Amino acid sequence: MVIMKIPSQAKRVFEGKIFDVYQWEQEMFDGSRQTFEMLKRPDTVQILAIIGDKILTVKEDQPNVKNRLGFLGGRVDAGEKPLAAAKREILEEAGLVFSDWELFKIYEPFRKMDWKIYFYIARNCRKAAEPIWDSGEKIKSKKLSFDKFIKIYSSEKYLGGDFGADLLRIRLDKKKLKNFKKKLFPFS
Amino acid sequence: MVIMKIPSQAKRVFEGKIFDVYQWEQEMFDGSRQTFEMLKRPDTVQILAIIGDKILTVKEDQPNVKNRLGFLGGRVDAGEKPLAAAKREILEEAGLVFSDWELFKIYEPFRKMDWKIYFYIARNCRKAAEPIWDSGEKIKSKKLSFDKFIKIYSSEKYLGGDFGADLLRIRLDKKKLKNFKKKLFPFS
Repeated sequence: MVIMKIPSQAKRVFEGKIFDVYQWEQEMFDGSRQTFEMLKRPDTVQILAIIGDKILTVKEDQPNVKNRLGFLGGRVDAGEKPLAAAKREILEEAGLVFSDWELFKIYEPFRKMDWKIYFYIARNCRKAAEPIWDSGEKIKSKKLSFDKFIKIYSSEKYLGGDFGADLLRIRLDKKKLKNFKKKLFPFS
Repeated sequence: MVIMKIPSQAKRVFEGKIFDVYQWEQEMFDGSRQTFEMLKRPDTVQILAIIGDKILTVKEDQPNVKNRLGFLGGRVDAGEKPLAAAKREILEEAGLVFSDWELFKIYEPFRKMDWKIYFYIARNCRKAAEPIWDSGEKIKSKKLSFDKFIKIYSSEKYLGGDFGADLLRIRLDKKKLKNFKKKLFPFS
């Protein structure tokens, strides 16, 4: 599938706190024209953080959502590189630093929205500071073994869409599973 | 996870062709307030249509997206019931009618958007008319056997997020696979 892009002639018709709305005149198959619409939001990063022989996962409460299973991460600030955002978020949210990393995949979860999720694997994370949460974050972290991680994050409890589906594909294929484990724990 | 809802005090700050934007003042954990934002779009229906011993799938071209693997379906019009939308869309797009159906699941794919996808299984579909495509649709349909369907729609080719993940979970569990097949083909 070719992912839809906001065309260069599109106009921003609304600028929101998170979401901007773009519109443009699209020529249809019969030559007629229609106003098309797409959204744009800041890209985000997610970090699968490895500490020793465990994977750090989080359950997050936000002011209007409870117990959301996920990963450390957050928005990429304007002008910031995704890797810099990943390093900033993991330090703010968990007080961790890392130098051994891999960009696992870039997800584009929603067809009518310009939004990329940069999904990083950060190996050998080390504690460097105390976490600093902002006023909208309550994060409970949990370290899981590889097997438990795969089980929980490929279950219906994790509403992670495309990453959840990727984990399921990894589970279905012994070779993929072995390679994925090696990616997370290269020296074990 | 508790799905986020647009609270009743939220104001619609933008009305788009597809997407409306809502904002409200949210009390944070520390008592401070921030402007929160969510989107609303029309709900949609998707129909897994059974014809004889096959499943009808589609590859769709839209004016700005090619070869999108999916299902018959479309938007629920204002005031329309989801089932009525499913019946209208399958008739418009494929000239099919059905009377034996099941609501497989309601997906809410995007946390910050009020958007439900009603996913129907329509058994024993019959041809009743010629398809009528609108100016923005080019649909190639393909009838797949159950095994081929499961294989393709649980692969990375189908970017179906949560339904893709559900199919993978069905593939991983022999009992679920048997039950799902029975759901589609109760009399085979």
